[in-house]
Amino acid sequence: MLDRLTLLRQSIHDLKLTAFLISSMSNLRYLFGFTGSNGIGLITHEQVFFVTDWRYREQAKQEVQNAEILITFRDLLGTLKESGMLQPAERLGFESHHLNFRLFSHLRKTFPNVRLTATEHVVEKIAVRKIPAEIDAIRRAIEISVKVWDEVLPLVKPGVREADIAAEMSYRGRKLGADREAFEPIVASGARSALPHGLSSKKRLEIGDMVVIDFGFLVDGYPSDITRTIAIGEPDERLKKAYEHVRRANELAQERIRPGYKGKEFDKIIRDYLSEHGLGEAFSHSLGHGLSIDVHSLPRIGPTSEDLIPSGAVVTLEPGVYLPDLGGIRIEDDVLVTETGCEVLTPIPRDLLCVA
Amino acid sequence: MLDRLTLLRQSIHDLKLTAFLISSMSNLRYLFGFTGSNGIGLITHEQVFFVTDWRYREQAKQEVQNAEILITFRDLLGTLKESGMLQPAERLGFESHHLNFRLFSHLRKTFPNVRLTATEHVVEKIAVRKIPAEIDAIRRAIEISVKVWDEVLPLVKPGVREADIAAEMSYRGRKLGADREAFEPIVASGARSALPHGLSSKKRLEIGDMVVIDFGFLVDGYPSDITRTIAIGEPDERLKKAYEHVRRANELAQERIRPGYKGKEFDKIIRDYLSEHGLGEAFSHSLGHGLSIDVHSLPRIGPTSEDLIPSGAVVTLEPGVYLPDLGGIRIEDDVLVTETGCEVLTPIPRDLLCVA
Repeated sequence: MLDRLTLLRQSIHDLKLTAFLISSMSNLRYLFGFTGSNGIGLITHEQVFFVTDWRYREQAKQEVQNAEILITFRDLLGTLKESGMLQPAERLGFESHHLNFRLFSHLRKTFPNVRLTATEHVVEKIAVRKIPAEIDAIRRAIEISVKVWDEVLPLVKPGVREADIAAEMSYRGRKLGADREAFEPIVASGARSALPHGLSSKKRLEIGDMVVIDFGFLVDGYPSDITRTIAIGEPDERLKKAYEHVRRANELAQERIRPGYKGKEFDKIIRDYLSEHGLGEAFSHSLGHGLSIDVHSLPRIGPTSEDLIPSGAVVTLEPGVYLPDLGGIRIEDDVLVTETGCEVLTPIPRDLLCVA
Repeated sequence: MLDRLTLLRQSIHDLKLTAFLISSMSNLRYLFGFTGSNGIGLITHEQVFFVTDWRYREQAKQEVQNAEILITFRDLLGTLKESGMLQPAERLGFESHHLNFRLFSHLRKTFPNVRLTATEHVVEKIAVRKIPAEIDAIRRAIEISVKVWDEVLPLVKPGVREADIAAEMSYRGRKLGADREAFEPIVASGARSALPHGLSSKKRLEIGDMVVIDFGFLVDGYPSDITRTIAIGEPDERLKKAYEHVRRANELAQERIRPGYKGKEFDKIIRDYLSEHGLGEAFSHSLGHGLSIDVHSLPRIGPTSEDLIPSGAVVTLEPGVYLPDLGGIRIEDDVLVTETGCEVLTPIPRDLLCVA
């Protein structure tokens, strides 16, 4: 597989650009290894510059690979201009989904003779297909997540607060060697579990609750992202039935995924299954997404996504149904898309567990 | 004090706008109480709309105040258009530092006859002066932080890993009732402490290390932000001397702050003090920043900031010096700016503590 900068230069060429400005921090980490919070990158046919501010002068020296480093006391674009690297009449691509309007205006003023072209997901598309080191990092993040799950499961019982379970998960993942959580863990119980993206609260688990637990950790910058749903005591019949359909939808997704689908095509297969069982409306989010340095990456697997799912991508498959005021269920796994199907990376059992 | 929407309507009027689009998630939380990750708000003289996607339909109902809620399966701006709320020839302000270029283009296409005006920090400026409930939340976040500090201090000793101290801090803050960390805690020791924004690593504390610990928690969405620096054993004489200057700079900032300064004017007072002692170059970041729902908020207190520091603002004062390969020192407090000076909100001692 070609290295990232070579692939990026190919994309730049294909887009008929002569230079490309990187402003997404995740993409700067992906291309150069920089983990700070401020910087821009510029790539042309011959050169690569990385610009950051004085706070990061030592950190940039230690971290940044593949680029000449510029440190500035003031504005990043002005510093780039002084480098003399961008010639008038150059065709510069920028990341339209990351560059805010203020910076765009500043870019236009700083380089009045450069032709600016809005692009989308140029680097993100390169990042979809994983190299072995990236898959290995995700595997290690999952390994830690599985250990955390086993350690925390005994705490899931009536009277325990959602937030305390979330705190235990974060703590144990870090102690087991994760960089940190991949995102704030969701522990949502009872009626709160019907909020697909509610965070954890001080609510205590009660008999009859469904508890949605969505968590993940970072290892070398790469995430895991797993959800399981547990019942406290015996759940309502409607929830029990819904659980079995989500369980089957998750299984179906693992059975059916293979390279070549568009995100919306594959989402539809699973959405149709849930709709046939009266749960289409209750499946109120996308089926899944790619896992990269950004947890929510390409390919998007949702009702409107044109993204292709290729082999070598690592994606989540996470059907869920949410019955207002009653509760919700989500079962999410991470899979590596292979030539013929997928390898499921997340081995945590999926059968309904009722604890009390 | 007038309520937030009234103040915002005044700003809209002063800017000669007839409507305002809010796209920053922090500002949506500030104005409407929404804690999700996707949404936009629109305010005119008569009406207020909040638009979010289907994932948040239940959460929005529970959280959003002061606005009519629209839920959509597709695109937020398109839904706003269908509401018929924006008339042609309306003058619409948008948040140029939050709206990315792609959404800006989409806005322009969706409302071709509306006159768009780029604005900056309209809501953020309103949020600078705190109401009692906000100050109270910050006080509670600080109270938890102080308890965490007392609990974690005994762990700061040779052989302990930076990341383990960070994990303990996060865990204990959550157990003590914080929503969560205000930001990923920084525990940086030895040469790593010379990276002003290095996160925690697996490095173990050693005799001779300076350890910079920068941490904070959220309560009801509002943050604390505190830094202390501890020596492991007896530090190098240069670090000891630098510590005393940072200590004095921190004290001087508390003594001298009062309403009416511009950020750059007040930054200069403290920067001049450190420069007189040969540490100007080593003070490689801004003196401080406002604390709001965003940890790094207005007023910015740095070398180029034109922001006014008013009474009622809560700001950090955080002089620091960083000696490459040797180590760094930062002492950061949170203060409430009063009519005559400030109230220091963070009571953790500031004298050099040498532990071993």
